[in-house]
Amino acid sequence: MTKLLAALEAGGTKFLCALGTDDGELRVQTRIPTTSPAETTEKAIRFFQEQQASFGEVAALGIAAFGPLDLNPQSPFYGHITSTPKPGWANADLLGSMARAMNVPVTIDTDVNAAALAEWRWGSAQGLDPVVYLTIGTGIGGGALVNGRPVHGLVHPEMGHILIPHDKGIDPFPGSCPFHGDCLEGLASGPAMERRWQKRAELLPQDHPAWRLETHYLALGLTTIILSLSPERIILGGGVMQQGHLFPLIRAEVRSLLNAYVQAEEILGGMDDYIVPPALGEKAGIMGALAMACSLV
Amino acid sequence: MTKLLAALEAGGTKFLCALGTDDGELRVQTRIPTTSPAETTEKAIRFFQEQQASFGEVAALGIAAFGPLDLNPQSPFYGHITSTPKPGWANADLLGSMARAMNVPVTIDTDVNAAALAEWRWGSAQGLDPVVYLTIGTGIGGGALVNGRPVHGLVHPEMGHILIPHDKGIDPFPGSCPFHGDCLEGLASGPAMERRWQKRAELLPQDHPAWRLETHYLALGLTTIILSLSPERIILGGGVMQQGHLFPLIRAEVRSLLNAYVQAEEILGGMDDYIVPPALGEKAGIMGALAMACSLV
Repeated sequence: MTKLLAALEAGGTKFLCALGTDDGELRVQTRIPTTSPAETTEKAIRFFQEQQASFGEVAALGIAAFGPLDLNPQSPFYGHITSTPKPGWANADLLGSMARAMNVPVTIDTDVNAAALAEWRWGSAQGLDPVVYLTIGTGIGGGALVNGRPVHGLVHPEMGHILIPHDKGIDPFPGSCPFHGDCLEGLASGPAMERRWQKRAELLPQDHPAWRLETHYLALGLTTIILSLSPERIILGGGVMQQGHLFPLIRAEVRSLLNAYVQAEEILGGMDDYIVPPALGEKAGIMGALAMACSLV
Repeated sequence: MTKLLAALEAGGTKFLCALGTDDGELRVQTRIPTTSPAETTEKAIRFFQEQQASFGEVAALGIAAFGPLDLNPQSPFYGHITSTPKPGWANADLLGSMARAMNVPVTIDTDVNAAALAEWRWGSAQGLDPVVYLTIGTGIGGGALVNGRPVHGLVHPEMGHILIPHDKGIDPFPGSCPFHGDCLEGLASGPAMERRWQKRAELLPQDHPAWRLETHYLALGLTTIILSLSPERIILGGGVMQQGHLFPLIRAEVRSLLNAYVQAEEILGGMDDYIVPPALGEKAGIMGALAMACSLV
């Protein structure tokens, strides 16, 4: 028998709320603009309460959230958003405010760990280990599953902030990350592209040199991730990756950077099935929240 | 009751062979110079056979080997050393040659995955998850445990070859890696130091600028590993790390590079217990082979 579950994708610009079932079917959804923590969570709670009145009680809630998050269940700040620059949200108790109102088991993880989980369970990474999911958009975030479980550790992966080679002779842009300057996110996120080229990334034509540079930075980051974690598949989502022409360019440059050192057919063969877009598309995050709720029942 | 087990640390310059027990006690050991695959494995097999004649049959053999290795049990080349530049050893069937002679269950992993396992089981990383073990010596290698299990994935981590920022204005040395030039290993291994400074690393005095640069490269690498995998502890072994004065320098620079982005007491508090030498010292590799044998019985 399928169980009714609640899923929340808490993003910096919108909260997606959905009911779904443990076979991966989403039933009813809504979208709430992200304003203050109190107002946004209150609207999310009201949505879930109204839907439960129509469809019946949910068995659990999964939350896939922007971060950084405190994911240590022993911490007094478990489930809080921590050092975000987003106004009003630093130290917001997202898990607690939802859990107190919902009165069902609730779990939380990063949006990218959740998306990796959804792709592993229902998408393009079934049966693979490890799996990495990267989003390239307003920020760059990376999640990882090992043996089907999201990696937490000290906090959780923050792959967007890894340090990559940056030739300032070719690209004098100093980087846009307030913490690290020219880390991967500081060089290759959507806002970094916009500041460097003074134009929104999606308005830059495919033959603009911006895309060669973007390919270069993403390939450097992916090469380091491959060498660190040896993933069996890497999924690239997010607004910047809507530029589908980047995929073959990135694959070719990663292959060139690895230079046949990693002897695996997935890489030497061209990587068409190795560096891929999410099979679940824009639903990877909310489906990840649903997959997390599944793990509670 | 303790079980008798065989452990082999197959290194590029020597093979260490030992008998031990599943409570982590090493009993009898020998050291064989690494020559050709046939000669070296034959001597290792003879040692184990002689010791078994005296002490009784072993229940299993664990092999901790230099690499890269094929660790895919479905591969026809499972347990082979693959793309090593070491003469005679490329494509050597290390697992097969030992398994055919020993006639007990045999398992193989990288020396650094094995060392991570030993430190997790008996050393300085007990109960932690993930754990990273890096060796900085003739090469740079990194192993990782997640949930107490060595990470394999596509092949296995090759953290020595991650790409890091390299300011050629400050350090014009092009790097010594035959595959990637100025990757972490190409800039910071023992041979890279020797080629850059025209002097063996252990002969450079503590106030030589070599050590500040070495600290910088290792800190860049560790920062990226922390952001990729979020380990709960990082253990640094190998010949270069015999320079104990590097530890506080590395910790300070990693902290500065992370710039308070990773909100964890282990990092913000100074990292004395976060970036550490191996509690098992030079025995981490052979103890790792023993731990692997334990997992078979």
